Amino acid sequence: MAEQTEQLDETIQLLSDLLQSGQDSEFIESFEALHDFEMAQVYAELPEQFRAVAWRLLPIDVLAAVFDNLDVDEVDIAGLLAEMPPQRGAQILQEMYTDNAVDLLQEMPSGQIATYLSLMPKADADSVRKLINYDDQTAGSLMSTEYLAVKEDLKVGEVMRLVKKQALEAESISYVYVLDQQGLLVGVISLRDLLTHPDDMPVSEITNDRIISVRAGDDQQEVAQIVADYNFLSIPVTDDKNHLLGVITVDDIVDVIDEEAVEDYSGLAAVNVSQINDSPWHSAVKRIPWLIALLLLGMLTATVIGSFDGLVRQVAILAAFISLITGTAGNAGTQSLALAVRRIAVGSENSGLRDFLSEVIAGLIVGLATGMSVFAIVTFWKHNMILGFAVGVAMTMAIMVANLAGYLIPLLIDKLGFDPAVASGPFITTLSDLTSVLIYFNVAQLFLVHLAGG
Amino acid sequence: MAEQTEQLDETIQLLSDLLQSGQDSEFIESFEALHDFEMAQVYAELPEQFRAVAWRLLPIDVLAAVFDNLDVDEVDIAGLLAEMPPQRGAQILQEMYTDNAVDLLQEMPSGQIATYLSLMPKADADSVRKLINYDDQTAGSLMSTEYLAVKEDLKVGEVMRLVKKQALEAESISYVYVLDQQGLLVGVISLRDLLTHPDDMPVSEITNDRIISVRAGDDQQEVAQIVADYNFLSIPVTDDKNHLLGVITVDDIVDVIDEEAVEDYSGLAAVNVSQINDSPWHSAVKRIPWLIALLLLGMLTATVIGSFDGLVRQVAILAAFISLITGTAGNAGTQSLALAVRRIAVGSENSGLRDFLSEVIAGLIVGLATGMSVFAIVTFWKHNMILGFAVGVAMTMAIMVANLAGYLIPLLIDKLGFDPAVASGPFITTLSDLTSVLIYFNVAQLFLVHLAGG
Repeated sequence: MAEQTEQLDETIQLLSDLLQSGQDSEFIESFEALHDFEMAQVYAELPEQFRAVAWRLLPIDVLAAVFDNLDVDEVDIAGLLAEMPPQRGAQILQEMYTDNAVDLLQEMPSGQIATYLSLMPKADADSVRKLINYDDQTAGSLMSTEYLAVKEDLKVGEVMRLVKKQALEAESISYVYVLDQQGLLVGVISLRDLLTHPDDMPVSEITNDRIISVRAGDDQQEVAQIVADYNFLSIPVTDDKNHLLGVITVDDIVDVIDEEAVEDYSGLAAVNVSQINDSPWHSAVKRIPWLIALLLLGMLTATVIGSFDGLVRQVAILAAFISLITGTAGNAGTQSLALAVRRIAVGSENSGLRDFLSEVIAGLIVGLATGMSVFAIVTFWKHNMILGFAVGVAMTMAIMVANLAGYLIPLLIDKLGFDPAVASGPFITTLSDLTSVLIYFNVAQLFLVHLAGG
Repeated sequence: MAEQTEQLDETIQLLSDLLQSGQDSEFIESFEALHDFEMAQVYAELPEQFRAVAWRLLPIDVLAAVFDNLDVDEVDIAGLLAEMPPQRGAQILQEMYTDNAVDLLQEMPSGQIATYLSLMPKADADSVRKLINYDDQTAGSLMSTEYLAVKEDLKVGEVMRLVKKQALEAESISYVYVLDQQGLLVGVISLRDLLTHPDDMPVSEITNDRIISVRAGDDQQEVAQIVADYNFLSIPVTDDKNHLLGVITVDDIVDVIDEEAVEDYSGLAAVNVSQINDSPWHSAVKRIPWLIALLLLGMLTATVIGSFDGLVRQVAILAAFISLITGTAGNAGTQSLALAVRRIAVGSENSGLRDFLSEVIAGLIVGLATGMSVFAIVTFWKHNMILGFAVGVAMTMAIMVANLAGYLIPLLIDKLGFDPAVASGPFITTLSDLTSVLIYFNVAQLFLVHLAGG
């Protein structure tokens, strides 16, 4: 990676030098020789005065490739577009794949969107308008409308001619979709089959009519799962009546999988890990609200312990095991939380009661094993079997409760329609601190007579 | 997902019925109409007596597609293969894409591998033998040797004829690789360009010689990052001298991204979330070792608190804030851990000292903000400014230490050559419990005179 960054810096220096010394055509040639991804990286990193020359020199299709390959989450693309006159920006938006153009427009205030759309040909503006209304995180927001589709009554040779004609515009040429007379999606032909069958064969003979498609409103994670399972290079998106609306290509699926993984991971840690290059100040400011919120929940735990201060005064050794019990229960809760979130993510949450019982039993086994271990350790260490028993019983119960909370809370959040990943590990551990000390001190209170004497 | 499982069950029932009633040719037809992924699912789930018929009926290329689409991590594929005579198994292995055949062989004891290899034609056996030696997690273990490659002096039409001839064997037909006279990789041609240029054009005119390739020993995560960045459909793998060894296709990259995400997520929670369908017993058995190991570390914390029992007896209210301090510091540590692991995963860990200082400053800000909050709350709540001050100072210090531990430990593990994701959240929180109580009780001890009086 470090190596790549270095290469990028060198390329930027080289291209800047070319512009500096007025070697415009050499600049264009060197820039166009780059891979699309590199063009995008270089363009975004060029000093602004050179970008002002670059967008004047480079052809529209090259600029469209640049903007197609910039990541809205990493670069202020709208800002880069605003460096040019709106006419030029509109041309670029029009030349970009619709899904990327829509992503970019969604970063702008609505007035600016309207300006750009008014400068685009009506047909293009309309197809952007249709896509811009799909919710983020749905299939509709990922699809592009540059796909290959044909009527069902053609021959292989005719379809191949069409593929060749449209190959440069289509986002993927791996599949050609087949529509019936009403424009409904009825099948798919792979380019591989087109290439390996004679020109005069009717395409109906190589059309696969067991077509797998998704609806525009489907969740992006489900779509990603299907594409990953089936090893597709793209998947068609339809409306409820099965009209073909667009296709989602595998490169967007790769991004979705990555994005969802980062979300789940961030959730578990209560920090947004996609922003790893923040300044210390920004980084801290983002972490503090969570910590303070959890601190307030933690104050409840402190209140509970505080209410037992008579007990603590009598049996000061009880304090020694507070963090052992809260910590271990928190760890168990984090484990069951992670399993529950994952189970929901891969969509295997449907067998309700069985899963629940399964988790209760797992929690019981984990709790008993850990509780008995701590009973043995404390009894041996403090030569106090009653203390050992109290700590062991409290530990078993605290683990079972934390385990169940870790399992149920993400399920509940999911049922309420939110992303279960927002139930963070720190939230579960802090909540489990509260239940753990409640259990611990109440159990200890029961054994008080024996403990105070022991 | 539930819907899909239902459909699968129906298909399995239908196909079983066909076999039951002796409608063999209908079975073959219905089975072959399925998508490869569905064939694989159905085959694995068929009752064993029907599988015994199925592998006799189905042609080798269909069986190869079945085995190509089974996931070694989810299904005992080696067991499925062992249901047939070794000759048949060897034929299937030979027909499969080499990367998948190698994955499958790697699940077997070495004696069995030797048997299968001895039954394969020498050339095929040799190419499998070459791949089987690559470490899991490297580019070499992901590549297949079924790629399209041509010499540099051909014309577009000649290459297209070659593509058509080899289209059925190649794992991906999106790119044709160009080799020089010595067999070194010098460029790549996209099928899109082949389709849109005249037959008599020399391919050198549409060859991209800025080729991005990876070495066979490169880490799979780095390879995945490149494919994701560049939106490639496949990437060539070479040896150190730049000889083309194979290609990695995007479907394998999708699996890698998913696998790495699951690993990181599992690490953070100290539980393997890829095994979500375990029985309660197995699930518990896998979680217990981590919990017990952390329990032992937690006993150290208990020992530290226990050693301050004189102080606790005098100032029982100190116990109330143990879990608040350990919990909050643990949360802060988990946040910085997650950021550090992610930073290493995306490969931006190179600017050592600056990152370190950045994290120290972030920890200081987070610690001060949280410490001052808790100072205010405790002072107001307990009307005891000295207690508030002691808790606040301890909190600030405990957070700074936990924050730094969360940052440094994964870095250290990475430098030692292990996966930083093994530094789990629970490990960091349990370790931070220890440092937190050490800090807390030592700070409290300093303030003892005032506290006992207050």
